[in-house]
Amino acid sequence: MTDDASAPTHPSEDWFIDADTHITEPPDVWVDRVPARFRDRVPHVERSADGVDQWVLDGQPFYNIGLTAVAGWPEPFPGGPRNYDECHPAAYDPAARLAYMDDEGIWAQVLYPNVASFGGQRFLSFPDDELKLVCVRAYNDFLRDWAAADPRRLVTIMSTPFWDVDAAVAEVRRGAEAGHRGILFTGEPHRFGLPFLADRHWDPLWATAQDLGLPVHFHIGSGDTASSFTPERVAATSTAATFAYTAIEMFLKNGLQVADLLMSGILPRFPDLQFVSVESGIGWIPFVLEAVDHNYREGRVDRTSEWDRMPSEYFATNVYACYWFETAATTEMLGLLPADRILFETDFPHPTCLYGNVHERMEASLAGVPEYVRRKILWDNGAALYGIAAPEPAPVRA
Amino acid sequence: MTDDASAPTHPSEDWFIDADTHITEPPDVWVDRVPARFRDRVPHVERSADGVDQWVLDGQPFYNIGLTAVAGWPEPFPGGPRNYDECHPAAYDPAARLAYMDDEGIWAQVLYPNVASFGGQRFLSFPDDELKLVCVRAYNDFLRDWAAADPRRLVTIMSTPFWDVDAAVAEVRRGAEAGHRGILFTGEPHRFGLPFLADRHWDPLWATAQDLGLPVHFHIGSGDTASSFTPERVAATSTAATFAYTAIEMFLKNGLQVADLLMSGILPRFPDLQFVSVESGIGWIPFVLEAVDHNYREGRVDRTSEWDRMPSEYFATNVYACYWFETAATTEMLGLLPADRILFETDFPHPTCLYGNVHERMEASLAGVPEYVRRKILWDNGAALYGIAAPEPAPVRA
Repeated sequence: MTDDASAPTHPSEDWFIDADTHITEPPDVWVDRVPARFRDRVPHVERSADGVDQWVLDGQPFYNIGLTAVAGWPEPFPGGPRNYDECHPAAYDPAARLAYMDDEGIWAQVLYPNVASFGGQRFLSFPDDELKLVCVRAYNDFLRDWAAADPRRLVTIMSTPFWDVDAAVAEVRRGAEAGHRGILFTGEPHRFGLPFLADRHWDPLWATAQDLGLPVHFHIGSGDTASSFTPERVAATSTAATFAYTAIEMFLKNGLQVADLLMSGILPRFPDLQFVSVESGIGWIPFVLEAVDHNYREGRVDRTSEWDRMPSEYFATNVYACYWFETAATTEMLGLLPADRILFETDFPHPTCLYGNVHERMEASLAGVPEYVRRKILWDNGAALYGIAAPEPAPVRA
Repeated sequence: MTDDASAPTHPSEDWFIDADTHITEPPDVWVDRVPARFRDRVPHVERSADGVDQWVLDGQPFYNIGLTAVAGWPEPFPGGPRNYDECHPAAYDPAARLAYMDDEGIWAQVLYPNVASFGGQRFLSFPDDELKLVCVRAYNDFLRDWAAADPRRLVTIMSTPFWDVDAAVAEVRRGAEAGHRGILFTGEPHRFGLPFLADRHWDPLWATAQDLGLPVHFHIGSGDTASSFTPERVAATSTAATFAYTAIEMFLKNGLQVADLLMSGILPRFPDLQFVSVESGIGWIPFVLEAVDHNYREGRVDRTSEWDRMPSEYFATNVYACYWFETAATTEMLGLLPADRILFETDFPHPTCLYGNVHERMEASLAGVPEYVRRKILWDNGAALYGIAAPEPAPVRA
C-alpha cells in the first residue's frame, strides 16, 4: 500500500478486483421503487423491540439484516450486529463501501444480494407472480442506484424472474441497458419444479445472455438449501460444526452444478456464453473435471465426446470460479487449473469473509505463483469478464 | 508380470491390494441361507422370457444382474450382459475371481454388494423387520461362504441392520467372529429418517466397531439416490451425460459425508475407529479438508478446535479413501494428501471399472510418485487396515 503518485501504472500491481461481495440491502430497496399500489405489499424493514432490524413481508419477519453483515464483528455466526447502526457502514452504504475499497486496494467489487437469497430464489416465495416480477425489477433498479456512486468500480449482477423464461429474457435485456454486467441464476432450477439446466426451455435465456455478453452466475446457496442448516443437525453437533458442514455442502453443490453444466450441452450450443461459480472455492475443480471426463467417456459407445471437445475443455473456455480462503489450492493445484478462469474474492461482509486479513490471505494463497498468474487472478480475468477498465491515471490511494 | 520364482519377495512390488470390488450375487444368496419359513419371501433370481436374469421380491423384479457386471462388455451403460451366462465368471464365481486376480497381480480384494445397494439400504425396503434382519444375516453368511475360496485374499465387508442400532451391534459382533473385516454403513442415515451421523444414538455401534478393530465403510451411493439417475434428466440430456452427472453426485456426496464425519465429534470420541470412503476418488479431499478447517474455525468463538486437533487432522489418522481413475490426483495432489490414507481400487466388475487397463491406469496415476508412497497405496495401507498378510513365500503367478 502506497500513497506515492509514482506507483506502478498497471493496476494489478496495486489494486485488485474482488469478484464476490454482498450488499446489506438498505430499507428502501423495494418500498421506494415499486408502483404505489404495491408499496404496502413488498419487503420492508422493521426494528423489533430489542433493536433487531428485520425484513418483513406480509407481517412476517423473514430475515435479520445483521446475520450476513458481520465483517469485523467479534462473535462468530450466528452472532452479528442487531441493526444497521451496528453494521460496518460499507455493508449498506455505497460511499462507505468505496472508502473501504480504497483502504484495501480493491478497485472493483462484484455485488451480490442477501435478502432475496443468493440465486434470487426467495422471490419465488412471494405471494403472486405480478409481485414477484415487480420486486425483481425493483431490486435490479436498486442495484443500479447503489452502483451510481461509482459505476466503474461497483459491478452489479442482476436477478431474473427465472420462473418465467420470457420474463427473464425481457428483464435481462432491460438490465443490460441499465448497466448490469452479469446475470444471477439458480444452479438447480429442477429443485424449484422448473426444467433441468440442460433443457432447451432455457435456451432463449442463454441466447440473450450470449448476445449481450453477460455472464451467468451460480452463487453458492442458489438452490434448495432447506435441509442444510437445521435445528436437528445443530442439536446433534453444534452451531459451529453445522455451520462448517453447511458451507461444504454449498461448495460441493456448486461443484455438482458445474458438472451439470458441462454435461448439459449448453456450452457447445452457446460457445461464447460464460458462467461463473461464485464463492465455491476452486480446489474441487481438478477432481470434478477429471471425473466428468472419465465417466462421460466411459458412458459413450465410442469413448469420445458428442461435442467438439471433452467436457473439461469447455470449462477452460466458458467457466470461471472464485476463491478466497484457500491457500493450498492456488499454490499446489494451479498446475491442474486453467489460470485464466480463477477469480479472487473477499465475500465482504459475510461470515467467514476475508476482513482485516485480506492481503495476508491473498499473499498466502499466491505464494510461489508466477507473477503473470497472480496478475490474471487479481486483475486480468475479472477485468476481461466484466469489462473493468484500469484507472487512468492510477488514482492515488490514501 | 513374471512367472519367475525368484520374483521380488515384497508383495507390493508384484502384487497389489484392490480396495473396492463388487460381487455379482449368485442366485442362492438368500434362498439357501434363510430359515425355511422365509424361503418364499426372500429375493430370488428369475430369468425373463428374453433371457434377462432379474432379482425378484414379492413377485416384482427389482434388479437386473447384468447392470453392474459389465467388465469387458463392449457397450456402455446401460448395456451389459443379460444374465449370468453372459457375465464375466469372476463377477459371481469365487474360483474364477481368484484366477482373474492371479492374472492381474491382485493379491487381495475387498468385496462390496450390488443387490442390497452400496450401503445395504435396500434391505430397508423389505416388507417387515424380521425379514430385513434375516436377509442381512443371510447376506453376511453368504459373503463368508464366498470368501472361503481363499479367506486370505477375499476380504468381506458385512452389512448391518442399521435401522436398529442394537441389532446392528449384535450383528457386527457375530460378523467379526465369522471373519468379516469391515462394516458397511450408510453415509447419510438422516436420509432414511434415522438420527444424524453425529447423534449419540450411534455410539454403541462405533464403540463396538472400535473394540473389534473393524473399519466402517461409506461406499458411494450409500444414501438416498432416488433423484440422481432419473428419466427426466436423461430426457433433458442423454444417458451418457446423466451417467456422468450421477457419478459426480455420488463422489461429491461422499466428500460431504467425510465433512459430516469430521464435524460429528465421532473421531475424538473413538480415537481408534477407522472410516473408509470407498469409490469416491481422492481429488476432492484437499479442498474439503481446508474448507472444513476454515469454516469450522471461523464459526468458533476462539477460532480453535473444541477437540484436541483441527478436523482435518482427524482425517489423517482416522479416514481412508479409495481412488481408481484419477491420474492427476496422485501425482499433483499428493503433497496435500496423507499418503497413509490412500487405497487403490479397480471397482471390478462395475461400469467405469478398471478392466483390461488396470496396470496402465495404475502406472499413469503413480508416475513420479516416490517408491515408498507407491508401496503404501498399493500394499501397506490396505494390508494394515484389513490385516492382510503378505504371501510367504510369494506365490508364483501363472
